[in-house]
Amino acid sequence: MERVGFIGLGTMGAAMAGHVAEAGYPLTVWNRTPGRAASLVAMGAKEAESPSALAAASDVMVVCVSDSPDVEQVLFGPAGAAEGVREGCLVVDCSTIAPATARSAAERLAGRGVGFVDAPVSGGSEGAQKATLTIFCGGDPAHVARARPVLATMGKTITHVGPVGAGQAVKAVNQVILAGTYLGVAEGIVLALKAGLDVGQVVEALGGGAAQSWVLANRGGRMIDNEYPLGFKVALHLKDLGIALDMAGDLGADLPVTALCAEIERELLVGGHAAEDMSAVARVIRGRSGLPD
Amino acid sequence: MERVGFIGLGTMGAAMAGHVAEAGYPLTVWNRTPGRAASLVAMGAKEAESPSALAAASDVMVVCVSDSPDVEQVLFGPAGAAEGVREGCLVVDCSTIAPATARSAAERLAGRGVGFVDAPVSGGSEGAQKATLTIFCGGDPAHVARARPVLATMGKTITHVGPVGAGQAVKAVNQVILAGTYLGVAEGIVLALKAGLDVGQVVEALGGGAAQSWVLANRGGRMIDNEYPLGFKVALHLKDLGIALDMAGDLGADLPVTALCAEIERELLVGGHAAEDMSAVARVIRGRSGLPD
Repeated sequence: MERVGFIGLGTMGAAMAGHVAEAGYPLTVWNRTPGRAASLVAMGAKEAESPSALAAASDVMVVCVSDSPDVEQVLFGPAGAAEGVREGCLVVDCSTIAPATARSAAERLAGRGVGFVDAPVSGGSEGAQKATLTIFCGGDPAHVARARPVLATMGKTITHVGPVGAGQAVKAVNQVILAGTYLGVAEGIVLALKAGLDVGQVVEALGGGAAQSWVLANRGGRMIDNEYPLGFKVALHLKDLGIALDMAGDLGADLPVTALCAEIERELLVGGHAAEDMSAVARVIRGRSGLPD
Repeated sequence: MERVGFIGLGTMGAAMAGHVAEAGYPLTVWNRTPGRAASLVAMGAKEAESPSALAAASDVMVVCVSDSPDVEQVLFGPAGAAEGVREGCLVVDCSTIAPATARSAAERLAGRGVGFVDAPVSGGSEGAQKATLTIFCGGDPAHVARARPVLATMGKTITHVGPVGAGQAVKAVNQVILAGTYLGVAEGIVLALKAGLDVGQVVEALGGGAAQSWVLANRGGRMIDNEYPLGFKVALHLKDLGIALDMAGDLGADLPVTALCAEIERELLVGGHAAEDMSAVARVIRGRSGLPD
């Protein structure tokens, strides 16, 4: 069995690394902020002193951090994984970052004989905990094939969608679709509340028709209650929409609903709601419509 | 078995009336434009000379026309159903109209001892043909109970959502949710096309996660192909968004994505695409993003 290293033990990463350990892989972990490794160490994982030390002890390294600069830091910063990694190893980046950053990291690692797969995930903290994540892989087929058994411990659907960067592009598409879907559901629920309807019944009735979506079925209730436990943080979705809008700018795509959703999410950040679930877009629509907070 | 009258034999109505006839109800039909009744007459239905004559021959009348003025015309215009209807009959309006128009029609009919149920449908022409429509009923419980067996021949899910007008309000909520969902899917597909991804594969991969929706699964392909067979006409969805935005204005709700979708659909009307399926919102996003028509 390959020795796995796991960098980044946030809400997503800690759950994902747990599934790798449960599957029996020899596991080494590292997290920027100390004190996140205890439960994994209790499962038999080793904690490394640095990404470099983790890389030296691993055949396949999984990275799950927040943003492009974080990935660059843990791979290429001081005591970064690139310092300790050996030829023939594979880096699997489950973070959501810009496709261009993924391509650049892959090129730098390829120069050392190290493979790279971008493998951003979708499904939020529930998906991470239940190992039901959807994972979009970009990379050489041989690298993706090597990453697959490790990813299979964390996710339900693992799709190889193209060369390095393609996984990130698909993730951006996912976040764009979510932007419109969440806003549509939020506006529908606010209209139903204002009209005095039995909104829970409405959500159930509409779930049987063309308005059916995962968002309506799984996030409608939060919007009705105006309570937004995680889930997936507003701040992270806004970060991902930034990636999508940058891509759109580079490629010449016009995404008006995506831009509108980013504007609404910035309003949430300003209001101190960055750490709520992204279904909190309904909070803004509710507020603008005079519903009590 | 109650004698059923069916007013309005458009794409939706003709299919729905066919299911009523198949279920064995004695059926009388009428359509403003002649020549739409032939296939129903071949199934044993009678064709009435006017809504008034149809009303005189019916216990339960189903109306399925385009808009609020059409409903007012067939019910209360010259030779309208109100002229021929007898006390104790029931009018079931499957058109999508303003909740206020439904309440007004119900009041006028109640004065003659005639019941009224608003029962707008969702599911488009496919749903009408396959008798899998989702139907939202507003009205007195006894009236809805009486309408239910007739509606059950046309639809799969029939929900009593409140008093008269509530069915229309729920339909408006449905159209608002669709607005956001269609635009999100359209923008996602355009971004995927611009990024050079295998978009069919992307749609399949994303369908397993939080971006999952009926729209993505059933309309993504049309957006990829840039061909928009019906389905549900842009012009009708735009009419329904007008109802929703009027409601929002009356109730003090702010629906920015709904307004954006209406703007995009008006652009389709101007461009001569009113009769395409509403998935044609992707045509506008594609065009603005420089993709070939």
